[in-house]
Amino acid sequence: MSEVAPAVSPATREERDLLGSLEVPAEAYYGIQTLRAVNNFHLSGVPLSHYPKLVIALAMVKQAAAGANQRLGHLDKTRFEAIDHACRRVIDGEQHDQFVVDMIQGGAGTSTNMNANEVIANLGLEYLGHAKGDYRHLHPNNDVNMAQSTNDAYPTAIRLGLLLGHDSLLASLEKLCLAFSTKGKEFAEVLKMGRTQLQDAVPMTLGQEFHAFANTLGEDLGHLTKQVPALLCEVNLGGTAIGTGINADPRYQRLAVERLASISGHPLVPAQDLIEATSDMGAFVLFSGMLKRLAVKLSKICNDLRLLSSGPRTGFNEINLPPRQPGSSIMPGKVNPVIPEAVNQVAFEVIGNDLALTMAAEGGQLQLNVMEPLIAYKIFDSIRLLTRAMDMLREHCVVGITANEQRCRELVENSIGLVTALNPYIGYENATRIAREALASGRGVLELVREEQLLDDATLDDILRPEHMIAPRLVPLS
Amino acid sequence: MSEVAPAVSPATREERDLLGSLEVPAEAYYGIQTLRAVNNFHLSGVPLSHYPKLVIALAMVKQAAAGANQRLGHLDKTRFEAIDHACRRVIDGEQHDQFVVDMIQGGAGTSTNMNANEVIANLGLEYLGHAKGDYRHLHPNNDVNMAQSTNDAYPTAIRLGLLLGHDSLLASLEKLCLAFSTKGKEFAEVLKMGRTQLQDAVPMTLGQEFHAFANTLGEDLGHLTKQVPALLCEVNLGGTAIGTGINADPRYQRLAVERLASISGHPLVPAQDLIEATSDMGAFVLFSGMLKRLAVKLSKICNDLRLLSSGPRTGFNEINLPPRQPGSSIMPGKVNPVIPEAVNQVAFEVIGNDLALTMAAEGGQLQLNVMEPLIAYKIFDSIRLLTRAMDMLREHCVVGITANEQRCRELVENSIGLVTALNPYIGYENATRIAREALASGRGVLELVREEQLLDDATLDDILRPEHMIAPRLVPLS
Amino acid sequence: MSEVAPAVSPATREERDLLGSLEVPAEAYYGIQTLRAVNNFHLSGVPLSHYPKLVIALAMVKQAAAGANQRLGHLDKTRFEAIDHACRRVIDGEQHDQFVVDMIQGGAGTSTNMNANEVIANLGLEYLGHAKGDYRHLHPNNDVNMAQSTNDAYPTAIRLGLLLGHDSLLASLEKLCLAFSTKGKEFAEVLKMGRTQLQDAVPMTLGQEFHAFANTLGEDLGHLTKQVPALLCEVNLGGTAIGTGINADPRYQRLAVERLASISGHPLVPAQDLIEATSDMGAFVLFSGMLKRLAVKLSKICNDLRLLSSGPRTGFNEINLPPRQPGSSIMPGKVNPVIPEAVNQVAFEVIGNDLALTMAAEGGQLQLNVMEPLIAYKIFDSIRLLTRAMDMLREHCVVGITANEQRCRELVENSIGLVTALNPYIGYENATRIAREALASGRGVLELVREEQLLDDATLDDILRPEHMIAPRLVPLS
Amino acid sequence: MSEVAPAVSPATREERDLLGSLEVPAEAYYGIQTLRAVNNFHLSGVPLSHYPKLVIALAMVKQAAAGANQRLGHLDKTRFEAIDHACRRVIDGEQHDQFVVDMIQGGAGTSTNMNANEVIANLGLEYLGHAKGDYRHLHPNNDVNMAQSTNDAYPTAIRLGLLLGHDSLLASLEKLCLAFSTKGKEFAEVLKMGRTQLQDAVPMTLGQEFHAFANTLGEDLGHLTKQVPALLCEVNLGGTAIGTGINADPRYQRLAVERLASISGHPLVPAQDLIEATSDMGAFVLFSGMLKRLAVKLSKICNDLRLLSSGPRTGFNEINLPPRQPGSSIMPGKVNPVIPEAVNQVAFEVIGNDLALTMAAEGGQLQLNVMEPLIAYKIFDSIRLLTRAMDMLREHCVVGITANEQRCRELVENSIGLVTALNPYIGYENATRIAREALASGRGVLELVREEQLLDDATLDDILRPEHMIAPRLVPLS
Repeated sequence: MSEVAPAVSPATREERDLLGSLEVPAEAYYGIQTLRAVNNFHLSGVPLSHYPKLVIALAMVKQAAAGANQRLGHLDKTRFEAIDHACRRVIDGEQHDQFVVDMIQGGAGTSTNMNANEVIANLGLEYLGHAKGDYRHLHPNNDVNMAQSTNDAYPTAIRLGLLLGHDSLLASLEKLCLAFSTKGKEFAEVLKMGRTQLQDAVPMTLGQEFHAFANTLGEDLGHLTKQVPALLCEVNLGGTAIGTGINADPRYQRLAVERLASISGHPLVPAQDLIEATSDMGAFVLFSGMLKRLAVKLSKICNDLRLLSSGPRTGFNEINLPPRQPGSSIMPGKVNPVIPEAVNQVAFEVIGNDLALTMAAEGGQLQLNVMEPLIAYKIFDSIRLLTRAMDMLREHCVVGITANEQRCRELVENSIGLVTALNPYIGYENATRIAREALASGRGVLELVREEQLLDDATLDDILRPEHMIAPRLVPLS
Repeated sequence: MSEVAPAVSPATREERDLLGSLEVPAEAYYGIQTLRAVNNFHLSGVPLSHYPKLVIALAMVKQAAAGANQRLGHLDKTRFEAIDHACRRVIDGEQHDQFVVDMIQGGAGTSTNMNANEVIANLGLEYLGHAKGDYRHLHPNNDVNMAQSTNDAYPTAIRLGLLLGHDSLLASLEKLCLAFSTKGKEFAEVLKMGRTQLQDAVPMTLGQEFHAFANTLGEDLGHLTKQVPALLCEVNLGGTAIGTGINADPRYQRLAVERLASISGHPLVPAQDLIEATSDMGAFVLFSGMLKRLAVKLSKICNDLRLLSSGPRTGFNEINLPPRQPGSSIMPGKVNPVIPEAVNQVAFEVIGNDLALTMAAEGGQLQLNVMEPLIAYKIFDSIRLLTRAMDMLREHCVVGITANEQRCRELVENSIGLVTALNPYIGYENATRIAREALASGRGVLELVREEQLLDDATLDDILRPEHMIAPRLVPLS
Repeated sequence: MSEVAPAVSPATREERDLLGSLEVPAEAYYGIQTLRAVNNFHLSGVPLSHYPKLVIALAMVKQAAAGANQRLGHLDKTRFEAIDHACRRVIDGEQHDQFVVDMIQGGAGTSTNMNANEVIANLGLEYLGHAKGDYRHLHPNNDVNMAQSTNDAYPTAIRLGLLLGHDSLLASLEKLCLAFSTKGKEFAEVLKMGRTQLQDAVPMTLGQEFHAFANTLGEDLGHLTKQVPALLCEVNLGGTAIGTGINADPRYQRLAVERLASISGHPLVPAQDLIEATSDMGAFVLFSGMLKRLAVKLSKICNDLRLLSSGPRTGFNEINLPPRQPGSSIMPGKVNPVIPEAVNQVAFEVIGNDLALTMAAEGGQLQLNVMEPLIAYKIFDSIRLLTRAMDMLREHCVVGITANEQRCRELVENSIGLVTALNPYIGYENATRIAREALASGRGVLELVREEQLLDDATLDDILRPEHMIAPRLVPLS
Repeated sequence: MSEVAPAVSPATREERDLLGSLEVPAEAYYGIQTLRAVNNFHLSGVPLSHYPKLVIALAMVKQAAAGANQRLGHLDKTRFEAIDHACRRVIDGEQHDQFVVDMIQGGAGTSTNMNANEVIANLGLEYLGHAKGDYRHLHPNNDVNMAQSTNDAYPTAIRLGLLLGHDSLLASLEKLCLAFSTKGKEFAEVLKMGRTQLQDAVPMTLGQEFHAFANTLGEDLGHLTKQVPALLCEVNLGGTAIGTGINADPRYQRLAVERLASISGHPLVPAQDLIEATSDMGAFVLFSGMLKRLAVKLSKICNDLRLLSSGPRTGFNEINLPPRQPGSSIMPGKVNPVIPEAVNQVAFEVIGNDLALTMAAEGGQLQLNVMEPLIAYKIFDSIRLLTRAMDMLREHCVVGITANEQRCRELVENSIGLVTALNPYIGYENATRIAREALASGRGVLELVREEQLLDDATLDDILRPEHMIAPRLVPLS
């Protein structure tokens, strides 16, 4: 990486592992195994550091394990303190650029785990006053990874990282619900036509429409808040290689998980069947399924926003989205619904992520799912995309939506669908006849009803009062 | 359909609707609108009757609505009794072959709803002693569909039908868990090598492996049992066209839903936001997501069963699946793992169904999701496929699995991975050296350890006792 | 199946195979191995007979193999004639109901192959005057399946069956293109606004819009016509178990494939690498990908048809789709776009099929893809669904579409987008100002231009002539 | 971005557009519209510059358009030279870090197009000696974007960028085929057992297996080489807003496309129906489908490599993959198949990308597909991932694979499947009996045949010669 090696500070240091030795950049906190992974996996171009919450969770796992090992007498105080200090720095957001391994990697996460082990070892060595790479004083495997296998430390870190990310997601979702709900109140008096199958149906208010957006997302807020912690809080830390806990101190598992819960503030508990927990990706599949559902709902809402704001002259034109950028260099005055359009695309991406994750989950074999790095990648990606998309939708679109109240009301008054409200009063046969005549002549339903004196003005006014059309009402028995 | 029309009993009867008249087969209980749908939608070739629980749920909805309407004075006793009687017959499994509309249909389920309305009307007319089609005495729309819209009756029936189907799914899943768990106990003493990344890892028991199958499915059993009723029990009956309840008696919704809960035995409740509930497909997306997770797990288990039984000579050969059919006409004695293979394919189908359903859910617009027929089709299909696949897997495969105990033990003793268990006693360096030597020479790890007198026989025996290798153990501090 | 066994004609006959004996219904042409499969695989409920072209292709393969075997002296004339006769009957559509195995099955198609072998053997026995099941005279394996393995006969039949189905698909697609093209001509003079991002853009004709539908489908017609035969015509018949052709006569492959080409009328050729061809599903993945593309295009077109016909009063209302069925019992006069809606759902199903097929293709291992039955099922299903959906769309929708010419023109005249056409004449600044003013005041662009005397009427008329707005034109340099 | 504003060189410059003004970083070559997009779309975190070939293609489009405009007299020589110079710099790889817009964006690519317009304008202004942002001398819209709309320039750039990327993909694929083919030759004499359904089948050579890998990928090489240029070479440049070419010089389209073909070296031609071409995403759907097929094949091959190298003691162990990194900190000596594992994950990602792209294609409406940015993102991503994965697979795995020849042969000799080769000599009944006895007793097939003196040693030797078992052979008629 550095082409000139100055005399006093060599540009690289040599490190060794089972397969031989490599030159690691001198200033790097990561070590040889990370470097091997970087050399092996030049794929997505997206490094671990792209997802800070995964990095933080890895450090928390290492910190918790070190704590448990120290308590059980397997790790001396000096080494513990070095690890503990190093982990705290990473948790505080330092040195994340040292997490350089590609999110797509073979080895079932070993490279991610070793990246964490090496960075923390070298940060610890620095704390202890030793040179980077002088692992006699603090070893990535023997000390930082003590009592752990990638197969338990890595899935535990993923779950914890997702819990951390999940908090942001919920916050964004809640704010979006609130924004729709606020608009629902603002538009409570705006009478408009409801549409089914893109055909005129019966009246409703724009407020009802926006409240429905708030409520449908609110259901997901409730679900995600309640279900996800239960899904993710069971961790397999302590299972080591395949869940049998081979070579682990029998007291270790409980201690390590307790400490991790305490560090992270999330109510983590040991998985009941560690063999099962080592290979099972079910929690991720279901969580991703929930995210997919949220994506589907957001996409549907954005499709509706785009339809309702279509126009200005040749579309529905019931609402206006706030302009965010000029829409066309060739068409003067054109402003496009760019924010909902971007949300649609995020939704498709999340649905694609769910599929990649599903295939990865299905592809696991026997005692371990080697596709777990992709699973982690896709689910962290979905969480972040959805969080950002919801923030964008709220800030740059929903809060600025305005209603074309006059246009909405004209469409109601001009609609054929209005006849449905008259149905109980003038009878189905008259209603059908009037509907046909209106359609054929281009005239209005009310005009025709008045012309035929089917109802007097007082009754008509009563029927057509918004509050009477948008809710059940005791009408004369037919 | 009948080519000779006898004098007294014409082969067809004429029925009329808004678009004109058609000749309906005289013996058919369905009517003109069903016939139009049959003529329009000649697509999947799978009629409604393929899913009896949907048909039954439709009849329950009609029965409940009629009950509420009678109670409120909108439906007279004669008509109510006729509808009630007709619904009971359908619920009891009669005349399902009259539900002839294709599962894939336009119109957001109107054709399904009208198929139910017409069959029930004509069954009711028969009960009242009138000719089929003589709708003056009992009308499909005015009476059977009274106070309903397809947009509330149909989604309600889908949810109820799924709840009925869900019971069967849970029963099959529970039995499959039990079968794996029983095998887990049977194989509790069978020591074998665990594998990670298809490479030899560390010892475990075959019992642990089968218990993990039971437990991973057990988690889904728990989830599905607990979550699905909550998802599906909120129904939008009473919302009529778009959820505003237009033209409905304000007292109707509560009465109708209560009655439906009572008829079906499921704790149905009215949806909180009927506008939202009319167009929202979230419950189906999430339920399908749960089914997808179950499919993924079943597929992973079946992949494992196929791997573990691979052989007889050139594979793992740790277990034997019961032979179900001759495997090859050209290769004498070949028996194949046909049952797990079929389960894999069911899993892929369920995952494909989930995608089709997801796209349909995303494609809904404004106040209604017109793609609901496909959603219903795919989710009913997934439930049934999974139920049947789990029954098949249990009956025709799991219960008959036997272990090749001797082979399993030989693989352990011959493995390099055994050295992991010696790690804490002979040190990582010795362990690594022995591992390499064993691999290079083709000799056994234990043989080499004994040869080098690194451990005495008593210690070795102690270390290698199964119960010591398959669980955490307090080993000498390194 | 029959509960009373009459004295002279027993209700069942006993058949035997490697695993023992079973009672087969006496009248059944299928035999014990088919029955085992029926007992094993009670899954989709969709039998082989649901796809007649697969059944016909199986019979053609058996006929071709028998011909080659007879020619090489391995099969005597009597047996050959019996097989030949039996195959001809199946090819002519007889006894398809004897193909009873579920489309989803384990065993990589062995059950399908044996179903064909057994039915043909028993039809042949009947021809020879022997009782069903008296396989000494004509044996399902030794004679009908001679020189074949499921692993070559079955994939060959699938490919051939798809080629047969493909012809129908092309015919439907061509007719649909023509229907759109005819409408394109019919609507050549209907000026309307084009829309991008659901916002008013610039003028075009409805004819151009329908021609674009024709052309986009026409591209697929061209592709499918040209590419698919090349994809499917390479067959692996003669490869036997794994493509090495073990135990096959070296002269057999060429003879059998030639004969199959001659029987089917499709230019089948032997695959170049039979090992590769035995396990490779690439042709199916690509063919399904092409069908998915067609589905995407059909869905997009139907989305457009639904948008363009939205209304009648609160939507775009530029075109009318022919009414196919009453749209609502509660809303008088409502007619819905049921045909395009059904096509959308077919498209989603086809996309779901593609995913299931993709996973099945990925799941193949080593020398054979055991998931091939699902692959066959899904691709036959997609072909048929698309064929039927295109016929439906054409017959029940496209040919009856009418234009609301007046409405289309009013939207153009009332649009802001018209200003784009004036851009080169009045300058971008004037155009932008006029656009803003029109939007704010609700007035028309032309009205404002006239009011400001920016252009005289003759020039305006010239600019606004449809032929000038819908194509490039040499305008004054800005 | 710069926190200290020096007196002479302000940290920002003000730019204006239709929506008002913003402060753009002074040193930025991009302008206000790019900045708006950056502020609006903070989503994937993946900027345009992540895909250099897209950036290069954008510059080529601008260069070609400027050339055509100059030739037609619409653009003066000074401005043309400035644009031409600027484009050349970008094509040469300069200033790619100025392409900062997120790959996921609303606006149908307008932000991408404007990012290119602004960077090229400011590079041109620099060339002309003017300050950045002084657009009077060279305007992003009026000059750089002259005669273009995003709706034609952007899709054209995507197609061209894909063609550029496609070349790399083909090169990697070809090298991978060659690597497999070379191994096929190297392993030509290694006799091994073929496996179907994971069960022992009949003998083949390891060379045949690797040749099949080469051939199956070779088919895709052929397809992609032949089909993709035809798919992508039709561009819609000249169609402007919706394909009608409104406001474009009638001579412009032909000139611009010719020039672009000349600049890029790819045989680009104008699309036949520009209306259709503006909204149609069919080429991308099909190309992505082809990439998906390649992904499926690569995943299947890697699954096989992992199976064949499973072990070292408890798996198939027929081949050895070169070790790339230590496999486990807890299990000494463990080396894992990390390279194929990473390829599997890339394949799943590509399949997920295909789905996201498919949904985006389906979601297009009327005259434009607004989801095109996601389509571009996913397909560029798939191409790059596959290219890198194939390079990785070849370099880090395939070329270093070695065969365990002895092990392979032992498995053949020890197999039951060997009996298939004896079938024609000892008869099916003897063969079946021997197979069963071998299986029950654990003894070898050959041992039993010799013991029973069913065949003499010379005949056995003859039958079992590899060249006789791995190809069709004229055997005695049974």
